[in-house]
This record gives sequence, C-alpha cells and structure tokens, in this order.
Amino acid sequence: MKLIRIGNIENEKPGVELPNGDWVDVSGCTKDFDEDFFSNDGLEKLQSYLTKKEHQLPRFNKKDRIGPPIKRPSKIVCVGLNYAKHAEESGMPLPKEPVLFFKATSAIVGPNDDLIIPKGSTKTDWEVELALVIEKKASYVAKKDAMQHVAGYILHNDYSEREFQLERDGQWVKGKSCDTFAPIGPYIVTKDEIRNPHNLDLWLTVNGETMQKSNTSDLVFDVSHIVSYISHYMTLLPGDIISTGTPFGVGLGFNPPKYLKPGDVVELGIEGLGSSKQKVKNLL
Amino acid sequence: MKLIRIGNIENEKPGVELPNGDWVDVSGCTKDFDEDFFSNDGLEKLQSYLTKKEHQLPRFNKKDRIGPPIKRPSKIVCVGLNYAKHAEESGMPLPKEPVLFFKATSAIVGPNDDLIIPKGSTKTDWEVELALVIEKKASYVAKKDAMQHVAGYILHNDYSEREFQLERDGQWVKGKSCDTFAPIGPYIVTKDEIRNPHNLDLWLTVNGETMQKSNTSDLVFDVSHIVSYISHYMTLLPGDIISTGTPFGVGLGFNPPKYLKPGDVVELGIEGLGSSKQKVKNLL
Repeated sequence: MKLIRIGNIENEKPGVELPNGDWVDVSGCTKDFDEDFFSNDGLEKLQSYLTKKEHQLPRFNKKDRIGPPIKRPSKIVCVGLNYAKHAEESGMPLPKEPVLFFKATSAIVGPNDDLIIPKGSTKTDWEVELALVIEKKASYVAKKDAMQHVAGYILHNDYSEREFQLERDGQWVKGKSCDTFAPIGPYIVTKDEIRNPHNLDLWLTVNGETMQKSNTSDLVFDVSHIVSYISHYMTLLPGDIISTGTPFGVGLGFNPPKYLKPGDVVELGIEGLGSSKQKVKNLL
Repeated sequence: MKLIRIGNIENEKPGVELPNGDWVDVSGCTKDFDEDFFSNDGLEKLQSYLTKKEHQLPRFNKKDRIGPPIKRPSKIVCVGLNYAKHAEESGMPLPKEPVLFFKATSAIVGPNDDLIIPKGSTKTDWEVELALVIEKKASYVAKKDAMQHVAGYILHNDYSEREFQLERDGQWVKGKSCDTFAPIGPYIVTKDEIRNPHNLDLWLTVNGETMQKSNTSDLVFDVSHIVSYISHYMTLLPGDIISTGTPFGVGLGFNPPKYLKPGDVVELGIEGLGSSKQKVKNLL
C-alpha cells in the first residue's frame, strides 16, 4: 500500500494511492496515520478495509495538497555519513559504527511544500535520503528481527544548514531542525512493495541539474543493521522515522560549495517511493 | 501553581499540588498536561478552575506514583557545557554560543522511577539540571520577549552514558536517549512562583554523598538567551522542554571517574522545584 495524507496544513486526511493512481479517503478506517495507528495493527486493518471498500470510497482531488504521510512522530533519527563517497566529500572519516543525530519533528512538511531558508542562512544544502517508518516498538532488537519492526519506506530530503551544523559550536542538530527542513513523502510505501531496499536508485536535481545520483546498494550500514543498532540506544516507537543517510553530491562537497538561494527548485526521488519538489523561498 | 501528574505509567491524571501539600485531581478541567493544554490557554483556565473549585476537588493519595509532570512533548532540547566549571571537568572549551543537543522523548520517566542502566553500559552518569517548559510557540523570538513563551520550570536529571556519548562515533544523542534517562519533576512550577531563575541552589547526591552543589547564577547563557537562541534554529512548541545544562560534579569529572552501579541511589533537587530520587537498576 501507498499511504498518503491529503489536505491543508494540520487538516490532512489519511488516504491510500491505489495502483490506478486514484487517491481514496480512508478516514472511515482510521483518524490519521500516527503512533496510535501503527500501534494498533493499523496497517492490517487498513488492508482489510481497502479490500472490502476500495470501490465505494470517496476520491480526493489529485490537485489537492499532499501533506507529510505521517502525523508528527515521536522522533526522527538520522544516520550520518552512511555512504562512503559522501563521508569523503564532507571531509569526514568513514564511521566504524552508525553516526546518529536527531532532527526536530517540527521540521516536517509535505513533499511539495516550500523550503524556507532560515534567517541568517547562507549555506542551506540538500540531502536525498531513504527513510524508514517504524511499525512496532523496538528496543534491543537483533539484526535478524529488525525488519519485523519496519512498516515501510519514505522519501526524505534531509535539508541541512552547514554553517549552523558545523561552524556554531558542536552538535549537528542545530543545522538540521529548522522549519521545513524535513519534507517527507509523497507516501509511505509498505515494505511488501519494495523487494530490496538495498537496490534503489535515488537522485536529486537543483533547477534541473543532477546533483545526487546513486543507489542504496552503496549504503555502509544496511537497513536491518541501522534499526537494530538504534534500538540499542533508545526505544523506537511506532511511527518513528529513521533516515538512512545521503549519497555523494551535496552542495557542501562542491568546490566551491553550492548552496540554495530563493527561486531555486529542488526535485528528488527514489525508485518505487515517488518524487517530491520544493521551491526555495526566503522567510517572509 | 505546581502541576503534577499522578498514577501508573501511561495512566497518569493531571493534578495540582496546593500550598498545603494536598494533591488535587484537575482532570475535570483538562484531560492532560500536554501540547494541547498549553496551546489553548490551559494555564489560565486551570487557575480559574482552581480558584472556583479547589475545596471540592478530589484528592490523590500521596502514596501514589508521581509521573512526569508533562505528557510526552515534541522535543527535549538540551544545552551542553553551560556552567564554566563543568566544561572544564569535561575537558571541553567553554562554548562561544550555546551547544544544543536532543534527548529522545521516549527517555522521559517520573521523578522517582528507577534509572535503568542500559545493556553494555559501564559509564552511566548523572546531571542535575534546571529545565524550562514552553507555553507559547516560539520562532525567532527576541531575548527581551523570551520569557513570555515560558510556562515554568522543572527539575531534570539528564542521565548520560559517557561511552555511548563520547566514544562511539559522533553526536551526543546516542548517550542521552536511553529509556529512563530523563526523570523530570516532581512538578512544573509556573514561572510566577520563581522570582529569579538565576539564583537557585541545585544539588545532587549519590548514596547520600554530595556530588553536585551549585547555583544557577553560574549559568553561562541565561534562560532568556537560551530560549531566544534555540528559537532561531527551530520552532519551540507548547510543552517542549529545554534543559539548561549541568554544573560541576558529574561522574566523568572525577579522577578516576565515578559511574553508577545497580543499587545506587541518586537524589537531586533545585530550590523551589522540589526533589527527586532514582534507584539504579540493571535491565531485567
């Protein structure tokens, strides 16, 4: 299934994109896609509901806004430097174990919402990433069991302000958490639809020019490893998002570096997970 | 007012500790102390409710468990190295601007709940801290206006696993987010009851021996500065917690370092904000 949320900001309704492209309203089955939904076998219930009612469900207008496909989760855990060539372009050694950092969940927006350059920023940068959504609470989970805790996959642009992240006294969170810095979606694709998460093309363009082009086969730490690893440091809750890192080709890695300016258009996508597009604007 | 939450884990009810020490049940006024409560003028409504009904409200049993006085917020933002002598004992330079990091909100527990040493940990450490609770959404707030966004204060023990934090490839979050690593409370004290947040004694003992003893007058960056600063990097939401840093005297700073072991008892307090007590246990 492809889970979507459609409607204006803070008023999104849950839906599903059908194989024929229709967006059906499933608010008769669940109030929202959130921690409660995943905690209470929501995916299973949604599947039966769809099977029974698919043809009679109301359709959303395909011109409506796509919201983030999950309502604010408890946390977004990100993995840093998880593609070898990206670690190199960032001037950092390849980590021996996953580097973790958080993004504020207040940074989450819909996939095609505007990217707002924060006040005082001159180094706003892009990062296309494969993200996971947790289905079942995970604490001290073995690598072999990790996938049982994953609901599915999602496209994420892990926007990063490099001066805030790297030049303002410690800890990356400062450059990762600005409003609009986490466009996710268009949809959560349930794991049954992705045969191999470690063989997906991913790409990102700025104003039509390709900046990132890679494949998740280049991940240093794979999906099961990451879920298991994180679950040894904190409890992952249903709905939590894990972003698995970005490949080579971020703005920071160019010589001289390339950063975003108002008017730019960023487009990105992952095979099977759809694409998204953000217009870059200044804060009004 | 002193806001408390009483009851078993995940079933706490909101209450207020009266000046006479009684705990009154205010679940007739609000379902909980959470983002919704603070967003909808909850403090003001609660004050009027109390004025009218204080004498007829049901009392909680004072032997009942005290939960964390706020239901899971969107984030816990922590300030690192915010007391000069603590930066020194940590072997780190005094920061030119606040160092920020996040703790997972899944680490929150009640003030007297057990501290569980994570699997594989040999360096679990304590940190008494003055924390703030946000009342009104804050984005790009000037220092002079910052206090208008604060609901009140809260006692926090920012437990930290030093090996996870400092020796396992980057970013402190890994050592800050284990379950039970954020005991908060006993209560949120509204800001009107704390005349000067920059002149509060704070202390922490392990098995009765004083480890930390300081005063918030030693904070490098004060409360208004911190709120304003963070609001330039992310939007603070109602109910969000900001922890302002710990003074000298953590286990890491001793020579040789002192870390917690099962059976230890940690007690801590801040003038006007009450005290808390955690028994140290291994994961069963």
